[in-house]
Formats: sequence, structure tokens, C-alpha cells
Amino acid sequence: MIRVGINGYGTIGKRVADAVRDQPDMEVVGVAKTRPNFEAEQAVERGYDLYAAIEDRAHQFAESGLETAGLVDELVAQSDVVVDATPSGVGAENRALYEEYDTPALYQGGEDAEVADVSFNARANFDAARDADHVRVVSCNTTGLSRLITPLKEQFGVEKVRATLVRRGGDPTQSDRGPINDIVPDPITVPSHHGPDVNTVIPDVDIDTLGLKVPATLMHMHSVNVTLAEDVDAEAVRDALRGEPRLWLIDDSLGIETTADAKEYAMDRGRPRGDVWENAVWTESVNTEGRDLYLFEAIHQESDVVPENVDAIRAVTDADTTAEESVRTTNQAMGVDLGGE
Amino acid sequence: MIRVGINGYGTIGKRVADAVRDQPDMEVVGVAKTRPNFEAEQAVERGYDLYAAIEDRAHQFAESGLETAGLVDELVAQSDVVVDATPSGVGAENRALYEEYDTPALYQGGEDAEVADVSFNARANFDAARDADHVRVVSCNTTGLSRLITPLKEQFGVEKVRATLVRRGGDPTQSDRGPINDIVPDPITVPSHHGPDVNTVIPDVDIDTLGLKVPATLMHMHSVNVTLAEDVDAEAVRDALRGEPRLWLIDDSLGIETTADAKEYAMDRGRPRGDVWENAVWTESVNTEGRDLYLFEAIHQESDVVPENVDAIRAVTDADTTAEESVRTTNQAMGVDLGGE
Repeated sequence: MIRVGINGYGTIGKRVADAVRDQPDMEVVGVAKTRPNFEAEQAVERGYDLYAAIEDRAHQFAESGLETAGLVDELVAQSDVVVDATPSGVGAENRALYEEYDTPALYQGGEDAEVADVSFNARANFDAARDADHVRVVSCNTTGLSRLITPLKEQFGVEKVRATLVRRGGDPTQSDRGPINDIVPDPITVPSHHGPDVNTVIPDVDIDTLGLKVPATLMHMHSVNVTLAEDVDAEAVRDALRGEPRLWLIDDSLGIETTADAKEYAMDRGRPRGDVWENAVWTESVNTEGRDLYLFEAIHQESDVVPENVDAIRAVTDADTTAEESVRTTNQAMGVDLGGE
Repeated sequence: MIRVGINGYGTIGKRVADAVRDQPDMEVVGVAKTRPNFEAEQAVERGYDLYAAIEDRAHQFAESGLETAGLVDELVAQSDVVVDATPSGVGAENRALYEEYDTPALYQGGEDAEVADVSFNARANFDAARDADHVRVVSCNTTGLSRLITPLKEQFGVEKVRATLVRRGGDPTQSDRGPINDIVPDPITVPSHHGPDVNTVIPDVDIDTLGLKVPATLMHMHSVNVTLAEDVDAEAVRDALRGEPRLWLIDDSLGIETTADAKEYAMDRGRPRGDVWENAVWTESVNTEGRDLYLFEAIHQESDVVPENVDAIRAVTDADTTAEESVRTTNQAMGVDLGGE
């Protein structure tokens, strides 16, 4: 069993913990948190050993009636690998801690690429993380783009990608963020940093991205153009994408027309926290004009990187499992079942 | 003086009436409305003769204390040209009325292109409307794209345009419309109808568009990619666009970062109803990657077609005025002063 520690138990950390516990070849050593709140209460409720991330605040957990198993250092020492799911920038500060205990670590996409030896997406570059000690799982948007571009590149050849990322203003609980009733170029400068981030996992693709923020919290929306190497029939593209494990080609007959519909469907299916781990691609939107492919896909910012973190754990610690085997195991254990086989 | 009747006194009609009244060579014969409300009250307050658009409801105006000058037929009979600013689809039904009195008519972009002999944008095809009796002024989004594409086409050559239109869900008063907290592909099928609509005024441009709706009311946002005929320096593009009368290249130093900022600035400048008649182009966003030009522009859906309607009136009725002269006269009279000379 691969012994996994989770440092940071917020939006990503709590989901990774559950996904890791569901795996047949992994166990959760414990989770670390800076302070008590409803998520810490739920960590204990779910049976995870809770570690205090900040020594000076450790007493707050006891004061809130939450038992802790020790400090984060002990968690790191006991783990075969640590998933750092702390807020952007904190992961980089934590690297010294993981090095001190010689524990391999995964970081999230909010960190600069330089925090790690390699950036990771299971579909794009699983093997690049083999034997790496510090691996960055790329962000939700980059994950979504990488899952889409890789099969297109393999099957049809990609001359250029141009994508407009219409991003949710904040997650559902981040109600102190904007925008309200506005459409915000973010960043105003074009192209945005998302394209270069895709290049950290797919170096040889020409991609320009533009970013916007809007008053929504449920999912991001990508308006994607891919100029393919040759004229391709739209149905051939749909068929190719339908075969991909983490691409959900939304069947027109479901009547799923918005990000809210996609989330509602995930909840109706009984998914934990209503998560949509797959890229939600509107099949009806997948069309070609000559070599130009267009489509809309929605990306669930809170969860699409979770199966990627699980795969990254295997890439770093298990030399025998292939990318395909890992993705299959992860998906079956989690219930990532809306994509292809 | 060109005698102009306005049929329909809502979002567009009321603005066109004011813009026409401001012109040195035009006068407003009157405005027609289906029923009394605050806009009808303001029409009378502003001194416009008010005509009843529906005979059966004409008595409602008197009951609301609003004096009418007659029925819409009389307005049409007295006018040299009628601007039809009725809701989408109603314009087509009104065509027979205009034909009955042999009065040339302008329609709005919500109508199908087939309603008119020619579709119109002052920058793209002013002369095409010469001597036409039925002219359609293209929609706000098509107007914005046409103003941008035409100078690029003339100065650099355009190989292909790809644009994602992130559209406001409704106008500020349309608070019964959605979406709320959602991002909606609209239409889901790609490409959208907006590209073909641009082709009604610029036939020979290759353009694909994608449409989305978001929870905002102030302006549309266009994420635009134009593949130019050759490599062009971004500053050369900015210079070319700066010379265009209805393109507002937003100066970085103004700190205008969102559609709300652009609207606030228009209000601070004392513009009627806070209108932004120009395309609001973020100068900082105008960049090139080889032949690929990218930029963000915001489009004020309530007002950008207003100066175009004024120009269309001249194109139809005044054989002596050139496109450039008309645009200059319209802009000076209205105060369209954020664009180039």
C-alpha cells in the first residue's frame, strides 16, 4: 500500500483524501490543516487522522474539541508521498519540509512550475513524473486543455490551439469574490499565462489563450478552436474524443445545456459533492470548418485535478503501473464513469 | 431637412430619436409606441409627437394623460424615412405599412436579413444602401465586429476571423432574464449565426463565431482572434485602430478594467444614458503572435447601433453625402468622441 499524506484540507485536499482512500493500492496516513473549521470537523468525522499544520495554532484544535495526531512534520515523516493542497504559494514554502524528510511531494497548479521538477497531466505526460521527487499537478484549466489537446494531437495533428477561457469568478463558497454583473478580461494582456502552462506538459504545441472572469461559481467554460493538421470530419473528431476516459461527450438527448445542468446531473448521479471530474464537452458544439475544429467544454475547477493527483501518486511511487492502468484503476475506484473507456 | 419617423420607442428607438434630433440635417416627425409607460411619458416630455402604433390601444394613451398626434400610419405618411425600432420580428410585419406609403425604412439587426434589400454598417458598406428602400442596420455584435474587421482588412489583409462572443444575459431593465450564476453556450451549436451576419455587410471575409451568455447586463465582451495576411507588429495594429472614428482604444492609464468601468466612464463624461457608442477596445489586450492578432473589446448592446442608424438615414435619403462625411457629422452632433478622427 502506498501511504499518502495530505497537507492542506480545503477544496482540493479533502477531495484528494477521499479519492486516495477509495484506491485499492493506497491508504491515507492523515491530513494536515492550519486551523479548526467545518472541514476539520468533517475530516475527523470521516476517520482521517488530523495533523496540525502550524505548531503555534495546534492548541486551537483541542479547544474546538478536535483530537489531533500530531504536527505536520510527523505526517510527512510517515508518508511515502505527500499531496500538498495548500493555498497557492504556500506549497513552494513547504518544499523544504518535504526535502527534510526525503518525502516525495505533489504540488497543485496554483504554484509556479519552478516549484517542481516536472509538471504533470496523466494523459499528456504520465511517464515524465517517474522517479521525480517533486511533481506539480497542473491547474484545472490546464488539465482540461491537456486532456483535450493530447488525443487531437495524436490522432489528427495540431497546427495551433486558440482558446478563450471564460472563468468562474470564484468557487461556490468564495462569496466574497467578484465580479458581480460584469465581464472582466483577466488578464487584460493577451495571450494569457494558460497557454504557456499547457506547454509545461505538452511542450510541442502552439497555443494562445485568452482569459475572462464572469459572475458564476459552478464551472469554467472553454471556447476552443484547434486548427488541425488536415481537414477532418466533425464526426471523426467526436468519435476520437468519445474514446477518452476523462472526456465526457455530453449526449444531446440529456438536455444538458449549461454548467448548472452538468452539475445537477452529477448530483443526481450521487457523485460526492456533485463533482464533475471529466471535461464536459458539448457533443453538439463539436464542429469543423475545414481544418478548424471548434467546441465548448465546461471544467469543474474544484474536482477535475483530483483523479490526476491520484495518478501522479502512482507515477511517483509505483514503477510497475502504466499510465493506462493507473487511469483505469483511479477511474474505477472513484467512479469517473462519464468518459470513454 | 430629412424628416424622420421612429416606429418603436424602446431601448433603440428612444436613443435613435435623440440622436436624429441632434443632427443638423434631420428632424424627428414623431415617435410611435404600442402602449403608455415611462418611456412614452418621457417621449412627450422631450417634445416628440407621440403616435399610437396599435389603433385598438390608442385610447390607453389618453387614459394615461398622454396626448397623441395620431396613428402610426400618419407618422409613416409624413416621414421621408422611418426607423423601425420595434421588437425582433415585428419589423418584418411592418414592412407592408412602409411599402403602402412608399416610405423608405430602416430595420434593426434582430430582423432576418431577408427583411431588407441590404444590410448596413457605415464603416463596412455605406454605399450599398444608396437608393435602397429597405435597409437593415446590423445588430450590436455584428456592428462591433464589422467596425473592427473592415480597417484590418483594408490595412493588413484578413485570412480568417475567429471570435467568441461573451454576451450579457439581458439589458439592465430585463431583470426577468437569465442566466443567474451560470455560463451558457448559446447557441450550443458552433459556429454561431453571428459570423454569417457579418458576411451580410462584409461578404468576402472568412469568419467563425461562438456565442455564450453570462450573468451580466452592462455590455457584451468579444474575445477576438484575427489571422492577418502577414506578420504585423502589435503597435502597428494599435495605430491603425486608433485612427478609426468608432473604435475607442482604451488608454491603459485610465484604469478601465471591466465593462462596468467603461460604462461608469461614459456616465462621468455626461453621456446620455451612459451610452458607449464606440467599440471599447483594451489597448493592452491588442497583441500579435506572428500573423495572429488577439484583442478584447466590449460592445454596448443598447447604443452602438444608434450612430449607424443615423448614417443609414443619410445613405438612403441623401445622395450627396459620403460615408466619411456622414460619420463625421453624426459623431460630432452626438458627441461620439472616444474614437479616432
